[in-house]
Order: sequence, then C-alpha cells, then structure tokens
Amino acid sequence: MSNIRHALTVKRSDDFAQWYQEVISAADMAEESGVRGCMVIKPWGYGIWERIQRLLDQRIKDTGHDNCYFPIFIPLSNFEREAEHVDGFAKEMAVVTHHRLIADGSGKLIPDPEAKLEEPLVVRPTSETIIGDAMARWIQSWRDLPLLTNQWANVVRWEMRTRMFLRTSEFLWQEGHTAHADEAEAKEHTLRMLEVYRACAEEDLALPVIAGEKPENERFPGAVETWSIEAMMQDGKALQAGTSHYLGTNFSEAAGIRYQDKEGGQQLCHTTSWGVSTRMIGGVIMTHGDDDGLRVPPTIAPWQVVILPMLRDKPEDEALLAYCEELRAALAQKTAFGERLRVLLDKKPGKAAAKRWDWVRKGAPVIIEVGGRDMEGGVVSMLRRDALWADSGKPDFHSPEKMAAAEQIPSLLEEIQASLFNEAQERRDRNIERGITTMEQLSEFYAEDKAQPGWAEVQWSKPTGDDLEAVVEQLKALKLTIRNVPMNGEPVDGTCIFTGQPAIERIYVAKAY
Amino acid sequence: MSNIRHALTVKRSDDFAQWYQEVISAADMAEESGVRGCMVIKPWGYGIWERIQRLLDQRIKDTGHDNCYFPIFIPLSNFEREAEHVDGFAKEMAVVTHHRLIADGSGKLIPDPEAKLEEPLVVRPTSETIIGDAMARWIQSWRDLPLLTNQWANVVRWEMRTRMFLRTSEFLWQEGHTAHADEAEAKEHTLRMLEVYRACAEEDLALPVIAGEKPENERFPGAVETWSIEAMMQDGKALQAGTSHYLGTNFSEAAGIRYQDKEGGQQLCHTTSWGVSTRMIGGVIMTHGDDDGLRVPPTIAPWQVVILPMLRDKPEDEALLAYCEELRAALAQKTAFGERLRVLLDKKPGKAAAKRWDWVRKGAPVIIEVGGRDMEGGVVSMLRRDALWADSGKPDFHSPEKMAAAEQIPSLLEEIQASLFNEAQERRDRNIERGITTMEQLSEFYAEDKAQPGWAEVQWSKPTGDDLEAVVEQLKALKLTIRNVPMNGEPVDGTCIFTGQPAIERIYVAKAY
Ligand SMILES: [Zn+2]
Ligand SMILES: [Zn+2]
Repeated sequence: MSNIRHALTVKRSDDFAQWYQEVISAADMAEESGVRGCMVIKPWGYGIWERIQRLLDQRIKDTGHDNCYFPIFIPLSNFEREAEHVDGFAKEMAVVTHHRLIADGSGKLIPDPEAKLEEPLVVRPTSETIIGDAMARWIQSWRDLPLLTNQWANVVRWEMRTRMFLRTSEFLWQEGHTAHADEAEAKEHTLRMLEVYRACAEEDLALPVIAGEKPENERFPGAVETWSIEAMMQDGKALQAGTSHYLGTNFSEAAGIRYQDKEGGQQLCHTTSWGVSTRMIGGVIMTHGDDDGLRVPPTIAPWQVVILPMLRDKPEDEALLAYCEELRAALAQKTAFGERLRVLLDKKPGKAAAKRWDWVRKGAPVIIEVGGRDMEGGVVSMLRRDALWADSGKPDFHSPEKMAAAEQIPSLLEEIQASLFNEAQERRDRNIERGITTMEQLSEFYAEDKAQPGWAEVQWSKPTGDDLEAVVEQLKALKLTIRNVPMNGEPVDGTCIFTGQPAIERIYVAKAY
Repeated sequence: MSNIRHALTVKRSDDFAQWYQEVISAADMAEESGVRGCMVIKPWGYGIWERIQRLLDQRIKDTGHDNCYFPIFIPLSNFEREAEHVDGFAKEMAVVTHHRLIADGSGKLIPDPEAKLEEPLVVRPTSETIIGDAMARWIQSWRDLPLLTNQWANVVRWEMRTRMFLRTSEFLWQEGHTAHADEAEAKEHTLRMLEVYRACAEEDLALPVIAGEKPENERFPGAVETWSIEAMMQDGKALQAGTSHYLGTNFSEAAGIRYQDKEGGQQLCHTTSWGVSTRMIGGVIMTHGDDDGLRVPPTIAPWQVVILPMLRDKPEDEALLAYCEELRAALAQKTAFGERLRVLLDKKPGKAAAKRWDWVRKGAPVIIEVGGRDMEGGVVSMLRRDALWADSGKPDFHSPEKMAAAEQIPSLLEEIQASLFNEAQERRDRNIERGITTMEQLSEFYAEDKAQPGWAEVQWSKPTGDDLEAVVEQLKALKLTIRNVPMNGEPVDGTCIFTGQPAIERIYVAKAY
C-alpha cells in the first residue's frame, strides 16, 4: 500500500482531528461561516442530511408520529419554571432582547433602546417547555393519548469551542416529543424510538451502534432515564449519535400536562423526548472516511453513481455524451434499497482525472469513467469507492460492458452498503477491550502514549449519588466517560472495578466526542 | 342551499376575517403559541407545508439548484454594509445581544451582563447578505457560474399585528440565491424562477395566479426588478404568493462577489433571489375554503382519501375493519399525479358522524364512510369534499362498489384538482374589472359600502419617482396598492387613469393582504 498516492494530504494515522477537517473541506461538505460558532452546510453535506432526513422521517411517521412546527423563541419564564431543567442546561443560550435596529447617527446600527423586549426570548436550545405548553392545551382526556409529535428544526446552544458537524452553536435536528397515559407506555415508547435510531444508524448510515442506558450523571436534565446509541469512531473515541429520554412527569408537572382518565380522575401525563442531529454526519465521516476522503453509504449518498465522460472539447464529445446518457437513463430506471437509483451524469467542464478525484474525495459510492476507448469497446471504467485501490497501488478500475454495468450496479450498491457496515462493525468489535478488571489496568489501557485504544467494557456495581460522582472523577482524570449500559449485555460475573463491590451490570467506558 | 347546516359557525359572506380564523382552528391547522407573533403549526397544517415543500423542492432541483444551509445569525455589520438594504427593511428584527442566562438571586433568570456579545447578531429576516459572503468565497472564475443555491429555513421579521400563515414574526420559507455572469442571464433566471412559482401555484396548489413585474415602489430593497405571482382571494383581495428579484450588482458590490472572465478580467456577478413561504397556505385557505371548512387540493393533501369505518365497539367491527383495510390496501397501490395515493384508514375512537365532519372541516378531498349496511351491499359511501352537498341539502354520498371505488378514485382526484383550479380561476376572472378609465370610476368601484369588489385592471403611463409616489398616495387613500404589471398583458389603447398621459402598460390594482 505504500506506493499509493492518497487523495488527501493528511492521513488518519497522522492527525485524526486534522484529517477530519480535511475531509470536510475536500469533500466540500461544509465550511466556517464567519459567524461565531455557525457553519455553512454546502450541497454535498446538506444532500447527505436531506437523505438522512427523508429516511428517518419515514421511520418516525411509520411509528405514528405527526410532524409539527413550534416557535423558535421561548420566553425566559419557561426556563424559570423548569428550575431543574435550567440547572443542567449550562445556560449558554442566545438571548433576544430587542426587536428593532436603529442608526446611531454615525453610520452604525444599534439595538433600539426603545424596542427592548419586556421579557427576553431565548432561541430554542431544545423544545420540551414550549411543546409542553402546547401539549397542555391539546390534551384533555385519555382519548387524546398517546400524543406523538415530532419537529425538524434548527436549535442554538452557545458553544465556545466548536467543531463542524460535531459541536456548533446552531445545528439542525429532529426532536420528538410524546405524552402517554402511564409510565409503562412512556418507557416502552422511549425504547421504541431508541430502536428507530438504532435501525436508522445501522441500516441507513451503516453505523454500528451500541444501544443502552446512560448512567445517572449523564442524564438529560429533567429526565428519569436517558438512553443512547453510541458509535465508535476510527480513532477509538465514542460518539453519542442519538438519545431517547423518559421524562417521567417532570415536564408535565411544570407545564400542567394532565388528562382525565376513564374513571374521570385527573392524571399527569408521562412524557418522552428524543433527538438526532447533523452530528450524525460527523459520525459518518469518522466511521467511513479513509485517507482518500469520505465514503458515503449508498443509502444516504445524494448521488450513488457518478458518470464522468472524458470530454475533449471536440466533435466526438457528442457521441460520448449520448453513450453516457444511455447508461444514465438505464440506471435511473433501476432500484436499490426500494428506491430509484440516484445517478449523475457530470458534464461540468474540467479534466476527467481531476473530476474523478473530486468524486473520490466526496465519496460517491460508484464512479464510472467513460472515454473514447471505452465507447469503442462497448464498456465503461468502473470504480468502487469503498475498494478504491488495486494491489498494484493504482485505482482498481473494472471494465464491464455498458449494459452489464447497469444490471450489476443495484446489487453492487447493496454490497457496498453491507461492506461499509461490516468493516465498521469488525473494527469496533476488535477495539472493545473486555478483559479489564482493575482501575490499574484501565489506567494502563488508556495511557497517554497509546494510540486509539478503543472502548473498555467493564463491570460495575452501579453506584449512585456521591459514590457515582467519585467514579466520574476517577474516569475524568483519565479523560474517560461512561458511555452507556448496553441493552442485552452479557451477565456479570465479577466485582466492580471502581468500588470492589459485587458487579451489577456491564458498562462501556471511552474517550468521547 | 338555504336548508344546509354548514360545518362552520361563520360564513365567508358574514365576516371573511373571522371565517379565516375559524377554518384554521376547525381544520386544526395552527394556533397561537403564546409567544409573541409566533404560531404553532399543527399536523394538518404542517402536513400541507410538507407536501408543498416536496413538490416545490423537486421543481427547484429540476432547474439545477442545490440546497444548502446558512447560519440563522447575521452580524449587525452585514446590515450596515447594505445601507440601501436596511433602509427599506423596516429594521424590525430580533436582535441577540447576550449568550448566557444567569439567576438574578431572586429566582429569576436574566441575560448575563458578563456575556454581552461584542457585536449583536440579528436573527435572519432574509439571507442575501450572509449568502453573499459565501458566494464571494465560492466564486473565482466564470467556470463557477451560474451558482444556483437554495435553502429551506425559518426567518424572523418582527410584526406588530399578526395573522396566522399570512403575517407572523417567525415563518418558514425557501429562499433561492443565484449568481450569474451577466445581466441577461440573471434576468432570464429571475423569470425562470417566477415561472417555477407560477407552475407550483397553479399545478400543485390549484391557485390561479397572475405573474408580472412589481412597480418601482414595491421592489425589494436593493432589487433592480421585482416580479411576483398574485392570487385573488375569495374576498377579492390580492395575496402576493411569491416573489423573484433581479438584484443587479447591488449585493455583489457590497459583498465583493466577483469572477474572472474568460479574458482574465475581474467582473461583478449579477445576482437573483426568490422566495415563497408558509403564507401560501393562507392563500390555499382563502382560495379553496368554503363554509364547511378547508378544501385541500389533492396534490398537497397529506391524506387524499380518508376511510371511516362506522365502528360500534362490537365483535362485528373486526369484519368491517378488514373490509376497509382491503380498500385501503387497494388504493395505496394506485397512483395519481405520478405518486402513490395517500390513504388513511382512520380507526381512532369517536362517532363516525363526528369524525366525518372533522375531515370535512380539514378538507380531505375524498371521504369514504363504511357501515355494516355498506359492507353487506359490497359498497362504500363516498363524499367528494369539493362537491359536498346534494340539491336536497344533504351530503351528496355516492355508493360505488368497493373495488369500483378503488378504480375510480385516481381519476376522481385529478378531477377534483382541476375543478378547484377552474372554480378559482373563473371566480377571479369574473372579479377583474377592465372597464375603469378614470380615478372617479376607480374610487366608485372601491367605495366602502361595496363588498368584495375584486381587482381593477387599468392602464397607466408608468410614472416614476415623485410622480409614482403621488399615484401611490392616491391609491393609498382608497386602501389600494398596485399588484403588478402582468406578463403578456393586453396592448394598451388609452390614457393613464392617474396622469392622463398616454398609457404605456396595464397594471392590476387591488386591496391586498
Ligand atoms: Zn478489482
Ligand atoms: Zn352526486
């Protein structure tokens, strides 16, 4: 592999953080906007988000939810009401205090002192309180339950240190909010949506994830239970890719979400909330990217197949374009993953080789080059982005006949999807250490000089309160956090590595984004 | 018709504004949120928006645009740079001045004085300036042109008097922004997008519109030309349903959007912008609604067919549900307008008659009731929402055989779509007065005591500057505005009704939302 000239300047093994930034810019996915903490999502990045949205939205609708839209502004008093909520909320939020700009007389604009809001408004960091207000209006009786809502929206959490897709002051997400008659139903729904996220991550994004419950200290403020899906990035760190919360009656009490039960009594609703965001795109990059750029799983690729005619600004171009168009049209009639293929015939000016490498960096799953010689031979030159290099160190072009390519590609795309998932899952499983039984071993495993140590699955006694706080501090010293308690984890057979008491369950411990 | 008991309490002819509010609440489309000027869009209203989005998004992509996402926050300095832009902008904007909340010690939260932003941020009222900054980064040479972008986003314009869907402080829209090499291309693109809006309005929303150019005084601040599509509501008022602007080089100069031409020279780009918003939903209500609620055109109906089994909480229900499910499954395989039908089997608890009227008020295009007697006869009871009442004054149920209904419904939906459009177009054409040649006649036509006078098409000499201002003032006294100069208008043959000079073109004059 040493003779390969990769398409990026930074390798994952050299500087993972730098590599991540280079993928984003080389694949033309996003860029800094110049506005503090906010990014511009460019067509290729946004196209991936649109695909994630479409697939996840269908899953959310299939589980009975209706989409709504709630105000971006939340009155300050909503946060005061939620004392507990605010406590944990870091309080870093964008606060609107004025509703008008005026000229200050020297060519500058200033917020008009005459237009100061009586009550400041907060740009939503999440919508539990404002949706809770709506639920209180909408729910009267048991007949109105369960109430299953979702919204796609932008949210703002002021961040001091940002990283594109992973942590930005503004980001895009979906937030589901539901109300139920009792605890059992609400808890069941919390797990149903966790399963929706698991399926979306694994089937749509080819991201293997561990679904499990967060420890007490990692719960969403106001939640009774917080569940997550956790993915392992190629540097061994964990990425929380989605969360689902059982909120008990905490938000119902604050907002007055009550229903009349069948016996005529007044009951508090039990609510849930759950969300995934553009952060998932960061997870796709750090899971599937390689030293040549991004590799987009075919299900979420804006273009699954890109056809590059080797145009030479000559009369022959016309025949070549017609040849390519035949292939495009044939492919566009095919289906994979239950949808029509998304095929681009890229006629933009530019050298074919340069364009090839652009599409390699963007990670289009299948890249097809067609030159005069291909046309004469009735074939095309086809590259699989997930298996780019031949042993020779050159791009591994295959040359099927044109219409044979059209026949093969649907199953090829499904093979690429499976292959990306399997590669990631095998890597993850290889990088989970299950043999650690003491803090000393844990500390050794995560010693500063070791690269990419992955996760540790350890047994613990599930301490709470101050005991848990002590564990969290011990882990913090190693820059570690508890990720989650996996569902269907192996039974325990030892002692807690933190407390020495009999173990109660297994947890994942890792460095994390 | 006098013996009909309509499903709403307010008739259009009694109080159109009140009727509008009642449709929105009776169809469960949206409600006041409690946050100043912001509404909550409920599932039926948001479902209609999702349909509009999907259809319009495809049209925007088909004309070569890529979707992106730009920051919600715009630095104050961007507005200062755009002196002209701000002048017209009413300056009513939400201004973020702080990035943290703290407790004030008495249980209240306040913006943290320590967390005051050095430069306030404005919540985007529109994105010309921030997208202009990106274009300046993205465009180097003629090869990068045209640059065709679009974003779906929320925007905020502080409004003192709000009306749901028509004028709210926060609303949802799409805003397209493009950059071109020269004036001719940019102007052509401005009209191309106007045509996309016309097609979307007429074909997707069944809203007949007049496409034309806005007079100078109605231009978007900073625009060289502003074009619009204008629809006539049932009260005779005009609704501007979409605008497309040719911006010349005004925004390019401010943001430095330049390219190197083929000869190596530096040129300013010519830019365009264009948008439609959730306001269109207000247009759908006021065009297609009737005294029984909303009538949603089938293309944008979240559910095109609603099946209501008359359940009686008895063992027979099972057979009835199976009978209905057969119909639902058969319909779900059919297509209309090139898409699979959207069919709901509504099993929610509740009396069938009450549920029928709910769906009438929401305006589902086809409502099918199925009771035990229908099942025995192998038929269903079918209502067309656009032709609800029989001459008898009762709902006009038809009783086709079950599978015959499944066969008929696709073409029935296309018939309903065409019928809604034709009804609206005939009404509009009936309500355009073309015989007015003097200000006196105009004033008489719009006399206070006359109901729903519609629009006047008059000839004018296209005054500019102060002369135009004088015309605008004259019209203002009659509560009228100039809507637009229709494309392909009839040739002129008279004198200007305002100035008495020879006419140059025809314009539409109307009261407007
Ligand atoms: Zn090979
Ligand atoms: Zn009839």
